[in-house]
Amino acid sequence: MSDAISPLAPKNYPSMPALEDVTIATAMAGIKARGRTDLLVMTFPAGTAVAGVFTKSKCPSAAVDYCRQNLPGGQARVLVVNAGNANAFTGKKGREATGITARAAADAAGCGTGDVYLASTGVIGEPLNAAAFAPLVSQMVKTANVDNWSAAARAIMTTDTHPKMATARVVIDGAAVTINGIAKGSGMIAPDMATMLSFIVTDAPVSASVLQDMIAKGVGKSFNAITVDSDTSTSDTVLVFATGTARKKNVRDITDIRDRRLGKLRRAFNRLLKELAMLVVRDGEGARKLVEVAVTGAKSSRSAKKIALSVANSPLFKTAIAGEDANWGRVVMAVGKAGEPADRDRLSISFGDHLVAQNGERSGDYSEQKVSEYMKRDEIKVGIDMGMGPGRATVWTCDLTKEYVAINGDYRS
Amino acid sequence: MSDAISPLAPKNYPSMPALEDVTIATAMAGIKARGRTDLLVMTFPAGTAVAGVFTKSKCPSAAVDYCRQNLPGGQARVLVVNAGNANAFTGKKGREATGITARAAADAAGCGTGDVYLASTGVIGEPLNAAAFAPLVSQMVKTANVDNWSAAARAIMTTDTHPKMATARVVIDGAAVTINGIAKGSGMIAPDMATMLSFIVTDAPVSASVLQDMIAKGVGKSFNAITVDSDTSTSDTVLVFATGTARKKNVRDITDIRDRRLGKLRRAFNRLLKELAMLVVRDGEGARKLVEVAVTGAKSSRSAKKIALSVANSPLFKTAIAGEDANWGRVVMAVGKAGEPADRDRLSISFGDHLVAQNGERSGDYSEQKVSEYMKRDEIKVGIDMGMGPGRATVWTCDLTKEYVAINGDYRS
Repeated sequence: MSDAISPLAPKNYPSMPALEDVTIATAMAGIKARGRTDLLVMTFPAGTAVAGVFTKSKCPSAAVDYCRQNLPGGQARVLVVNAGNANAFTGKKGREATGITARAAADAAGCGTGDVYLASTGVIGEPLNAAAFAPLVSQMVKTANVDNWSAAARAIMTTDTHPKMATARVVIDGAAVTINGIAKGSGMIAPDMATMLSFIVTDAPVSASVLQDMIAKGVGKSFNAITVDSDTSTSDTVLVFATGTARKKNVRDITDIRDRRLGKLRRAFNRLLKELAMLVVRDGEGARKLVEVAVTGAKSSRSAKKIALSVANSPLFKTAIAGEDANWGRVVMAVGKAGEPADRDRLSISFGDHLVAQNGERSGDYSEQKVSEYMKRDEIKVGIDMGMGPGRATVWTCDLTKEYVAINGDYRS
Repeated sequence: MSDAISPLAPKNYPSMPALEDVTIATAMAGIKARGRTDLLVMTFPAGTAVAGVFTKSKCPSAAVDYCRQNLPGGQARVLVVNAGNANAFTGKKGREATGITARAAADAAGCGTGDVYLASTGVIGEPLNAAAFAPLVSQMVKTANVDNWSAAARAIMTTDTHPKMATARVVIDGAAVTINGIAKGSGMIAPDMATMLSFIVTDAPVSASVLQDMIAKGVGKSFNAITVDSDTSTSDTVLVFATGTARKKNVRDITDIRDRRLGKLRRAFNRLLKELAMLVVRDGEGARKLVEVAVTGAKSSRSAKKIALSVANSPLFKTAIAGEDANWGRVVMAVGKAGEPADRDRLSISFGDHLVAQNGERSGDYSEQKVSEYMKRDEIKVGIDMGMGPGRATVWTCDLTKEYVAINGDYRS
């Protein structure tokens, strides 16, 4: 865990509004580190709809299994999240731990365990001693209060150097509805799924099936378009909750994806997902630079995304960025290894506004000095035009620095 | 370029025997660095058969294009290799450079340009000034001599910290035949093809089609089973030459892959490929540890290899190895992200002889102290049993250290 805050951290955190009937409690449960909160409990009013997306790992955590099992019910009353232990690869003990936690939360909230959602993040393979903190969970459900979003964002951090939160407001049926979101994630981030953890709550009355459509489509250009190190977590979870309390302000239920009011909500929701995803990549382990890789002119958008990820995940590309080296040869290498249709002689590459390569060779306008100056920035944009078709995709990543190696060489010890 | 020799470098280099009628010359052509050899010319007697495998990159170098074009001819008289400039992504100028080099070599050797093979390694995207060193190539063809293998291995190095060479002897038809090989490679190594560069020469009389079968099959468990950083070069080339001079010792031609004498030759050839491949991974950029990842019990061998590579390429796994941390949770993570059939509850993981995880949870025998002691070794073996089927595969990689980042953060500058 690093003490220094990422140089790419936001200058200000947003002021997170309370959401009616959504209560939050955090605690220092001593799950791994001492002296910081590592347990989050959030409660929702009766009738709250839930949707979610999870890691594509074939070895998911016990909490991911648990959420997947409950999701068809579509209803949520309590969310319990712990940091410091992923409860992954913990076998039968792992399933027992989710059972104990869910039972404690359900009993305290007066609901069934099917309305409880769980997430765990931290070390893989260590048994999670849920019995030790279950009494705390019961107590937290009862004492939670509404105005605690910033504390919630902090309690789910692991190697994160700063809390991640975002909020949005949309007017529907003449009334303002709110969307609040928090996220955590810094390493073991790859875009083949959600991200590590994110929880989003709105007071809009949206049905579980519509929420599921929103989140499944929304991750494509947000959490599934970022990569820190190409490594896929066992615990990745994005859960979205819709309490429906905006009904009191005469906002009518949204239960159909063809509902014309949904467009506006979806746009605000997608912006919020993007905002949270960018916070994750900005806090990539050891990151000193935020890198946007925009591919255009590919055969298809799927092909464009594969090429963009091949570049964004290339260790040689990422170390060159860390070294402030406009080494576009490594972009060529990473385009070449993606295995997607490419024609060297039609390929163009730019760093910011500087065209460095065109038609299969170095651009005539290339100025090493100007491009080197550009590479010193905190935020680098790499443009790749394949010159082959209409496909386009953008992904975001960070540089690969010695600090990444240092953070991950002694994480467990 | 690093001055320090890899701690994993071999203690001794083999004494490389001369091969009759195979001449070698090296020179300081000043292509990139000063004060070291960077140009290699090798000549072969008339009737030398040639075979090769190349990068799967969609943006291959001009030299790769050139070799591919000549390969159907199956005959070679001259090999010209330069280090310091990859002649990749150099467009029309790149094709001109291969033409100039091949013409100079062919004229000096008295053969056609179709019998000339070329390889270039180094920076991508810089035009290669072949006109500057073509006169040197002509001269080298004429002055080359037979006993220069160690110099050849040195002249093709880039970020390599030590030369890579191996030799083998096999008795066929009662006479000894020799196989000599050299290789270079340190970064931008991924096993989806050959490696960076390797050249192997035998005096055995083997036809081009049999040679092609030998090399195509041989790379699977050697050059295609190693990975330093998952990055695929634009220049990867393995060429094999068979001069046939052993005919003078009454070794009869091998022109059919069903020839019963081939088995012995193939085994020696495969051992030599493996030896060269291991030299490359041992010299991985910044490497401090050699890591073997052996997967057993997978659904198929293809699946086993995909899982093994997912582990071997995971930055989090590799940084943990660098930190001497027995973080088997990251092995679970990397198995999970491979996307191959896996059952968490049947998975076993060992480091050396230490079983750390079994049946989806930490092994009862697990001793943090013993495993931590093991992790301090130079060579680490990771065993992964999927418990699902007969598929097995082994790959080799190295750790990911701060030195890798340092080497690649300022390679070009």
